[in-house]
Amino acid sequence: MNIYLDNAATTAIDSEVLNVMMPYLYRYYGNPSSNHSLGRKVHEAIETSRRTIADILDVLPEEIFFTSGATEANNWAISSSLEAYRIKHIITSAIEHKSILETFTEHFYKNKIKLSFVNLDRKGNINLNHLEQLLVENPRSLVSLMHVNNEIGNITNIEEVSELAKIYRGIIHSDIVQSLGKFPVQLNSNGVDFAVGSGHKIHGPKGVGFLFARKRTNLHSLLHGGGQERGYRGGTENVASIVGFAKALEIANSNIEKVHKHNQTLKERLISGLKRLDLEEFEFNGESESLSKSVPNILNARFPVLPNNRLLQNILDEQGIHVSSGSACLNLSKGGSHVISALYPKSDGENVRFSFSKYNSLFEIDTAVRAIAKVFKQEKKRFLVKDLHTVQSESVVY
Amino acid sequence: MNIYLDNAATTAIDSEVLNVMMPYLYRYYGNPSSNHSLGRKVHEAIETSRRTIADILDVLPEEIFFTSGATEANNWAISSSLEAYRIKHIITSAIEHKSILETFTEHFYKNKIKLSFVNLDRKGNINLNHLEQLLVENPRSLVSLMHVNNEIGNITNIEEVSELAKIYRGIIHSDIVQSLGKFPVQLNSNGVDFAVGSGHKIHGPKGVGFLFARKRTNLHSLLHGGGQERGYRGGTENVASIVGFAKALEIANSNIEKVHKHNQTLKERLISGLKRLDLEEFEFNGESESLSKSVPNILNARFPVLPNNRLLQNILDEQGIHVSSGSACLNLSKGGSHVISALYPKSDGENVRFSFSKYNSLFEIDTAVRAIAKVFKQEKKRFLVKDLHTVQSESVVY
Ligand SMILES: Cc1ncc(COP(=O)(O)O)c(C=O)c1O
Ligand SMILES: Cc1ncc(COP(=O)(O)O)c(C=O)c1O
Repeated sequence: MNIYLDNAATTAIDSEVLNVMMPYLYRYYGNPSSNHSLGRKVHEAIETSRRTIADILDVLPEEIFFTSGATEANNWAISSSLEAYRIKHIITSAIEHKSILETFTEHFYKNKIKLSFVNLDRKGNINLNHLEQLLVENPRSLVSLMHVNNEIGNITNIEEVSELAKIYRGIIHSDIVQSLGKFPVQLNSNGVDFAVGSGHKIHGPKGVGFLFARKRTNLHSLLHGGGQERGYRGGTENVASIVGFAKALEIANSNIEKVHKHNQTLKERLISGLKRLDLEEFEFNGESESLSKSVPNILNARFPVLPNNRLLQNILDEQGIHVSSGSACLNLSKGGSHVISALYPKSDGENVRFSFSKYNSLFEIDTAVRAIAKVFKQEKKRFLVKDLHTVQSESVVY
Repeated sequence: MNIYLDNAATTAIDSEVLNVMMPYLYRYYGNPSSNHSLGRKVHEAIETSRRTIADILDVLPEEIFFTSGATEANNWAISSSLEAYRIKHIITSAIEHKSILETFTEHFYKNKIKLSFVNLDRKGNINLNHLEQLLVENPRSLVSLMHVNNEIGNITNIEEVSELAKIYRGIIHSDIVQSLGKFPVQLNSNGVDFAVGSGHKIHGPKGVGFLFARKRTNLHSLLHGGGQERGYRGGTENVASIVGFAKALEIANSNIEKVHKHNQTLKERLISGLKRLDLEEFEFNGESESLSKSVPNILNARFPVLPNNRLLQNILDEQGIHVSSGSACLNLSKGGSHVISALYPKSDGENVRFSFSKYNSLFEIDTAVRAIAKVFKQEKKRFLVKDLHTVQSESVVY
């Protein structure tokens, strides 16, 4: 059995995506920078992909720059805007992705830039009054706030943030990795100066992403040499993956509502299934329980600690049910989640992120709930598990 | 007809390479940073690939860092060594790859670092006396010299350069993109501190490369966040391409002699074929005519200018014969070649780089020579073409 509930970490590639990639992996192997016809053909494929992505985001093709992923794009957006605008102050939040936080820390130590963290409420929502206060005290800041949080699914109103920041002449950067293809993100109208996306989160390939940089913004290079990406990002392009990324976004974009609804159904089912277990010390993290304040494909919950250092996620994994303890990017390096620790510094439960995709089914959700119920039933000396049989029989019906 | 003679720009992927990539593009889609079994499986594939590459280069696995290509790796090596060692002076040559030269220029302007170019002879060979003089005047320089030049094929004795630089406490960086898989490069013994390679030049995929950083060297990150590559290079790994890169190097390494001989046969045939045309103002660029001083897969020649702005390379392209006007990376951005201009600032011929691979045949070389002969025969009012018929009949025999 293989029940993959870690789609916020990465997604299975769509076979349609792989199909459009194959010719560029094998047959059309020319270097896009080569002047001859083999090179030009490949170059055209990149430009077509750029147009596809630009059209979907309602921006200009020349505002899209392909990168090796969102991490590179975040690094690029940040170092470029700090340089180009001689920014002295950054406003961000403690629950941003590590590719943002660590880049800021680096610049903080190296360039003695001031770094402020906007206050969050208990559920991870941004305190807009505090944001405004920070902007008043530090006009012309770089404001970096993600659209959707990858661990708790919280949605931030980026238009609102942009509007506010613009009043104080701020530069706005937003990581839209987790909203790309899941909402109809319209970058032209939402006011951000820089945004980044990644292929592998939307059933595309790993190792490709983009930086959106609004035309009127200054852009400095991060990778020099070669003249690719109109001179802004050197390196022979990862052609097949670029083509696959565009296709993945195209597919996602034309199925937004359908997949949204599908994920919502899964999420509601998982929420009610977990609640019915009636575990002690159980809680949903962030806004992830809310259907309006978080994305439908992410649910993050705190479970009671199991005895003998056993981890629920490992027990599930042994049964072929794959969930995450937070951000995938952190697990191997440090363990634990900086997002959960920032929001709940004192809680000591086991946090589990469930994240879905179009490839998951209600049956899989029910199987996962049953497996969780079983774990805690076995621990019933410590935990009270209710209605286990109801859950089991109900799940077979759907 | 499709005769691809631009293998120094990029190569066709080996089907064996694609075969090992496929499972990681489709079936094993886990995020290598995920803690669950799907993630761990993929993580292991990366580490196995790292060991394969490290073994071949006779270095430690922890000295190999995967990147999005050699351009990123060059940028990384340079900015890291400048930072980590507080380098104030760089020694390089005017014929390095643009990902090196442009990175230096950037640091030159931004950080007011001194930049010296070592003298080259007419054929692009490094003047070691001048290098030593520069080192005497500037001990503890960063010395960046490539192993094999991608345009003229010149081989630089990197061991010699390293030994010399070490006397003056230099840090040595070498771009080995064009020698990787073509020579038995042993990084452990050749003294370099940093080296970079790229997948797509050795029948591997585009968008993957490595930085070799010797263990005792200081390494700073270029891309922050996520903890990948042991915390030195953030970003979800391009797993399939990493696996493919290792396979490509494995294949190349176990066929070095055979492919070397194959390419040498093609080169000798092309040299004699072109010479027999007896064109006016014809010359081989750099050391590319020499079988000992340049790699067998690159031949760079200067042809007489054709009337009416016609370009030989375009005429050949129309016939399905794909050659380069120098470095592929430059063509679209600027046109022309900085290497050829550095060596022959006054010459005004048309420079053409022919570069071969294991997939080329003698028949293809002969067809190319015939096509070139025909072009210049048609221009015979201006050029004297000898022995055309000899060439044609001879080529059919092989
Ligand atoms: C919100 C967010 N930003 C950035 C990234 C990094 O993207 P990539 O893996 O393409 O570097 C991720 C995923 O790892 C993410 O979830
Ligand atoms: C010598 C040399 N260095 C670096 C590069 C850049 O490699 P990549 O395309 O992987 O960025 C190339 C090829 O373009 C090259 O020939």
